[in-house]
Amino acid sequence: MSLRIGITGIAGRMGQLLSEEVAAAGATLAGGTARGDDPRALFQASDVVIDFTNAHSAPAHAALAAELGKGLVLGSSGLSAAEEKAVAEAAQRAPIVYAANFATGVNLVLALAEKLAAALPAEQYDAEIVEMHHRQKVDAPSGTAIAMGRAVAKGRGTTLEEAGRESGRDGHTGARKTGTIGFAALRGGQVVGEHTLLFAAGSEHIALTHRSFDRRAYATGAVRAAQWLSGRAPGLYSMSDVLGLG
Amino acid sequence: MSLRIGITGIAGRMGQLLSEEVAAAGATLAGGTARGDDPRALFQASDVVIDFTNAHSAPAHAALAAELGKGLVLGSSGLSAAEEKAVAEAAQRAPIVYAANFATGVNLVLALAEKLAAALPAEQYDAEIVEMHHRQKVDAPSGTAIAMGRAVAKGRGTTLEEAGRESGRDGHTGARKTGTIGFAALRGGQVVGEHTLLFAAGSEHIALTHRSFDRRAYATGAVRAAQWLSGRAPGLYSMSDVLGLG
Amino acid sequence: MSLRIGITGIAGRMGQLLSEEVAAAGATLAGGTARGDDPRALFQASDVVIDFTNAHSAPAHAALAAELGKGLVLGSSGLSAAEEKAVAEAAQRAPIVYAANFATGVNLVLALAEKLAAALPAEQYDAEIVEMHHRQKVDAPSGTAIAMGRAVAKGRGTTLEEAGRESGRDGHTGARKTGTIGFAALRGGQVVGEHTLLFAAGSEHIALTHRSFDRRAYATGAVRAAQWLSGRAPGLYSMSDVLGLG
Amino acid sequence: MSLRIGITGIAGRMGQLLSEEVAAAGATLAGGTARGDDPRALFQASDVVIDFTNAHSAPAHAALAAELGKGLVLGSSGLSAAEEKAVAEAAQRAPIVYAANFATGVNLVLALAEKLAAALPAEQYDAEIVEMHHRQKVDAPSGTAIAMGRAVAKGRGTTLEEAGRESGRDGHTGARKTGTIGFAALRGGQVVGEHTLLFAAGSEHIALTHRSFDRRAYATGAVRAAQWLSGRAPGLYSMSDVLGLG
Repeated sequence: MSLRIGITGIAGRMGQLLSEEVAAAGATLAGGTARGDDPRALFQASDVVIDFTNAHSAPAHAALAAELGKGLVLGSSGLSAAEEKAVAEAAQRAPIVYAANFATGVNLVLALAEKLAAALPAEQYDAEIVEMHHRQKVDAPSGTAIAMGRAVAKGRGTTLEEAGRESGRDGHTGARKTGTIGFAALRGGQVVGEHTLLFAAGSEHIALTHRSFDRRAYATGAVRAAQWLSGRAPGLYSMSDVLGLG
Repeated sequence: MSLRIGITGIAGRMGQLLSEEVAAAGATLAGGTARGDDPRALFQASDVVIDFTNAHSAPAHAALAAELGKGLVLGSSGLSAAEEKAVAEAAQRAPIVYAANFATGVNLVLALAEKLAAALPAEQYDAEIVEMHHRQKVDAPSGTAIAMGRAVAKGRGTTLEEAGRESGRDGHTGARKTGTIGFAALRGGQVVGEHTLLFAAGSEHIALTHRSFDRRAYATGAVRAAQWLSGRAPGLYSMSDVLGLG
Repeated sequence: MSLRIGITGIAGRMGQLLSEEVAAAGATLAGGTARGDDPRALFQASDVVIDFTNAHSAPAHAALAAELGKGLVLGSSGLSAAEEKAVAEAAQRAPIVYAANFATGVNLVLALAEKLAAALPAEQYDAEIVEMHHRQKVDAPSGTAIAMGRAVAKGRGTTLEEAGRESGRDGHTGARKTGTIGFAALRGGQVVGEHTLLFAAGSEHIALTHRSFDRRAYATGAVRAAQWLSGRAPGLYSMSDVLGLG
Repeated sequence: MSLRIGITGIAGRMGQLLSEEVAAAGATLAGGTARGDDPRALFQASDVVIDFTNAHSAPAHAALAAELGKGLVLGSSGLSAAEEKAVAEAAQRAPIVYAANFATGVNLVLALAEKLAAALPAEQYDAEIVEMHHRQKVDAPSGTAIAMGRAVAKGRGTTLEEAGRESGRDGHTGARKTGTIGFAALRGGQVVGEHTLLFAAGSEHIALTHRSFDRRAYATGAVRAAQWLSGRAPGLYSMSDVLGLG
């Protein structure tokens, strides 16, 4: 029998893309919820639920997955520390994939960013991240840019907080500090998402670029994660785990 | 007789490049000053003086040019409004070229930036400027990036101040405002200077990029400006005038 | 009364985009032809006809425009010399816009390419054109890339044929010849069209890039050309004329 | 005692850079040969010899290393199959590093290219390689571009020969074939070397770019290889081995 996948927020733009990708993947659409619906019935009817609705619903959805022994693919962004903790606790009893970005290529790029950073000494190679998004985006840098920065820091054996960010340079900035990670944000047009990580030394530059043209890639990746979760032991997994990039 | 060109700050890195370019252009090196020298003798011995020393010396140098009827090529950056006014007054009695950047290509790019901006409606095309410089640079955005922004504003029939800058986006920025001009600054390695002006609409992007590999281009342009000044009427000229890009 | 615009090949993908853009522009859709239809009735019912069908139909359509005193916007590509001559003759009696690419941005870029080429000496600045299109495209370089090359040659006071192409370098090519124009073609994914013109000197690079995300830009430009044609004297016009870029 | 490094062709441009890098690394310069010198004495006086002279000398130099039990860093390019075989045989008795490009960043990029190719299905992601070099370069694509292509093929479980190259597209090319690897070459200015590997799918592009600004990076890498070779068992090693990228 094919995998039964439920979708919260099925009527929204992302919900529609997810529905189409569930069908394209040969899985069964177990149903969906709209704003205000009780998600319990959805979890009962599903093997795995995909949730891209919002940060505040994440703990309740994760708790339902834990209670009912279902898989959860969690794509909401902007979770608070408390919300993230609730998800992590639920993941002790249910298999959960939680990621900032479900596109295959973005996750590959994050994995490679860490490898590059591990190989290129921070004293010689300045790491700069530049991203571009459509004019409606209200925050900067993007979550994916920050995830890139975390990957660079991890590759260098530190954290983004310790390494330090130079984000949004404007005015008298002083010389660049060795080891910090730079961020710059462009906004314009209808760009779905472009991210470039640059390592700049005096004699060479190495750059890794990802360009998204279609939000569908997020839905495709989320369905792939749902299929990967099927029969998996409880735990909090990343897209890196799903893609075997660890 | 060949043109006699004097150089203030002749012992510095830029002074040396200027000396070499004076020779390469077949002009006569009339002499140079070092820190602390009185520049009057230099102006007397020269037809045109090239000055890349610093903003604070600019008014005195311009006044000497005016008093002695000599040409001045002024490449110092960061002049205050008062310093700029003093230079403009001196230019009523002496021919002065004053520019943020003397590289031929940069000035071409500035001229084209204005034409692009005039042709692409600000309601549809978001203008974003991204620049990259070496890790030692202490301010952002670069003077050339700002000159690009001014060119865009001029092409749109406004000023950079009226159009508004979105520089150094970081944190909750809100959606992009129509008609503003965005700036982003990257720092790293030993990049001499890279500038890209992007016009981003939903269905197309148009970009204009300039990359400098060698500070010599600034010296070459300054000597070209000095030659163009020879026999010119008093006035405040730009590199656009020198290059016939007006 | 609003402008009446007819569309040949109205049932095709381009025809549909044109229909939508006619409506969006507030013009009247006068009708359309499908394969096999006689276009005479369409020309009679229209003030201007837009024709993107194919090269072989162009002479007959141009002759109808000339006979009936109608405007013609001609976007078919790959016309033979004989077909182009027939169109030019018809343009003595009817106003015709004929262009390789109707996107506003592309035509701006072509106009600027000519200006850049006129300002940058061919002895110092090597001109290279690189384009990318989707994997289905069967020829290289693209018509727009060739139009860019022609613009560069014109700016240098020569022709592409005289300047010489270095297209598709592979194997032992010998050193680059001064003054030639280089072409390179990438193919992959579903890229609608990307073109970059690069002027490369030892100390600086200047690049002009156009990226198309949507074929709709061609339809928008064609309708703009139709509106511009209304009441125009007979003649063969370019998109540069329509956009006032001459 | 510090490592004794000998340099063939020490008077050439690459030889001079190598001498400087030997000193900078704290190793001892054991001597060098010029054209026509017998290299035997150089090998006797050295622990490791670095050879960037030419393909035809490679077998004799490798044989000397094997006979005298010395290390060899071989950076000549364009070796024939027979010359490569002679080097491989010598490597059974001496430790030899042989590479197309000694720059750290280039080798990192080659290692990542293989990983990317392994993760991105060839049916969906078209691989395109574009390189740019100075106007004097006489062949295309560059050796490093071909090495990139081989890395992509290897990641896909095949070879470049089996996958097929689409190099230098010009004229009627037909649609892109699935699984082939595309190559494009730009020439102009004084570009030391730029390489981009692009994976293009319909919904996303992933690109990896390397830009060299200084040939010194090759010398730095070669000296690093020499130090790594010290005390190493006989064998034919790559820069990937030296850098621990395997």
